[in-house]
Amino acid sequence: MGVLPVVNTYPLSSYTFGTKEPKMEKDTSVADRLARMKVNYMKEGMRTSVEAILLVQEHNHPHILLLQIGNTFCKLPGGRLKPGENEIEGLKRKLSSKLAANSPSHQPNWQVGECVAVWWRPNFETVMYPYCPPHITKPKECKKLFLVHLSEREYFAVPKNLKLLAVPLFELYDNVQRYGPVISTIPQQLSRFQFNMVNA
Amino acid sequence: MGVLPVVNTYPLSSYTFGTKEPKMEKDTSVADRLARMKVNYMKEGMRTSVEAILLVQEHNHPHILLLQIGNTFCKLPGGRLKPGENEIEGLKRKLSSKLAANSPSHQPNWQVGECVAVWWRPNFETVMYPYCPPHITKPKECKKLFLVHLSEREYFAVPKNLKLLAVPLFELYDNVQRYGPVISTIPQQLSRFQFNMVNA
Repeated sequence: MGVLPVVNTYPLSSYTFGTKEPKMEKDTSVADRLARMKVNYMKEGMRTSVEAILLVQEHNHPHILLLQIGNTFCKLPGGRLKPGENEIEGLKRKLSSKLAANSPSHQPNWQVGECVAVWWRPNFETVMYPYCPPHITKPKECKKLFLVHLSEREYFAVPKNLKLLAVPLFELYDNVQRYGPVISTIPQQLSRFQFNMVNA
Repeated sequence: MGVLPVVNTYPLSSYTFGTKEPKMEKDTSVADRLARMKVNYMKEGMRTSVEAILLVQEHNHPHILLLQIGNTFCKLPGGRLKPGENEIEGLKRKLSSKLAANSPSHQPNWQVGECVAVWWRPNFETVMYPYCPPHITKPKECKKLFLVHLSEREYFAVPKNLKLLAVPLFELYDNVQRYGPVISTIPQQLSRFQFNMVNA
């Protein structure tokens, strides 16, 4: 129990990045998003979403890959599962949709690993918590974050309307203003891993 | 990989609490503490400390046991390892020293489980980070937090100068002002566990 799990991280420069057709957001405002969530909840029940923490290294420090929309908003790659969909398979589907070339023969080897955090949305509002609050019997969304182990070399195709950023842990830490409560506490959730920085 | 680890939590009322002789803090100020840390570092190298997250439940919500010193400062039970000491054995020793009756025949069954977070102190200062910052080759302290699984019934003996509090996750969350950066992000680190609230 005293040994920390090891995660291999490879230099950002071992990965190749291209572009593909834009992936537009389904909603143009937060209000639209919450309204669509409500409609879907009535049809399908609690929304389940899955997101990936993809790690690379630069200067011997771990960095996380984030998708930037416009000039400020950043998110983890991932998305909503279909009703009844397996979460591992669903996350691979979402990762391929967001970050893989369209050719089925050039899919990255998505190795979905440890679940590192679970967040709950009690109401049709933006706020989420890392627990289901007491007295909430029907949460509206459960979001799981998984560590996805990258191979030493991969090709990523980034939708033209998005930017893929490699953000160091020290930039995320204690930076809720810029990255929000979910992404800004990823450094704490990863602290139990031992990073093996492979200098390929 | 999709299945979350289960943690059984028992009602606070299944545990019994008594008192024992005071355990005084070794230092009376933060400056004293950092000075002692420096002296020890010269003799023994990096300080390694271990702390325990002990969980109970009330009203179907997980609570963490914290030791309160004076009227405001709260800490997790645990402490510094002796040079070369095994971290699991060291944590059990510290837990017995802080929370067990003096009788060796009445020791709680400390089941040290998952490491949930690791914090680093780069300098002889109060600030710690959930990663070793880049360019820091000689960190001064490494602190590991472990989940310690409690049995259904236990007797705790609390030093007379301390109070043992059961604090709900929702009180810790996003409350860095009151609990500091380490304790206030425990809810995020525990979010990947599924709590099985046993109503004994």
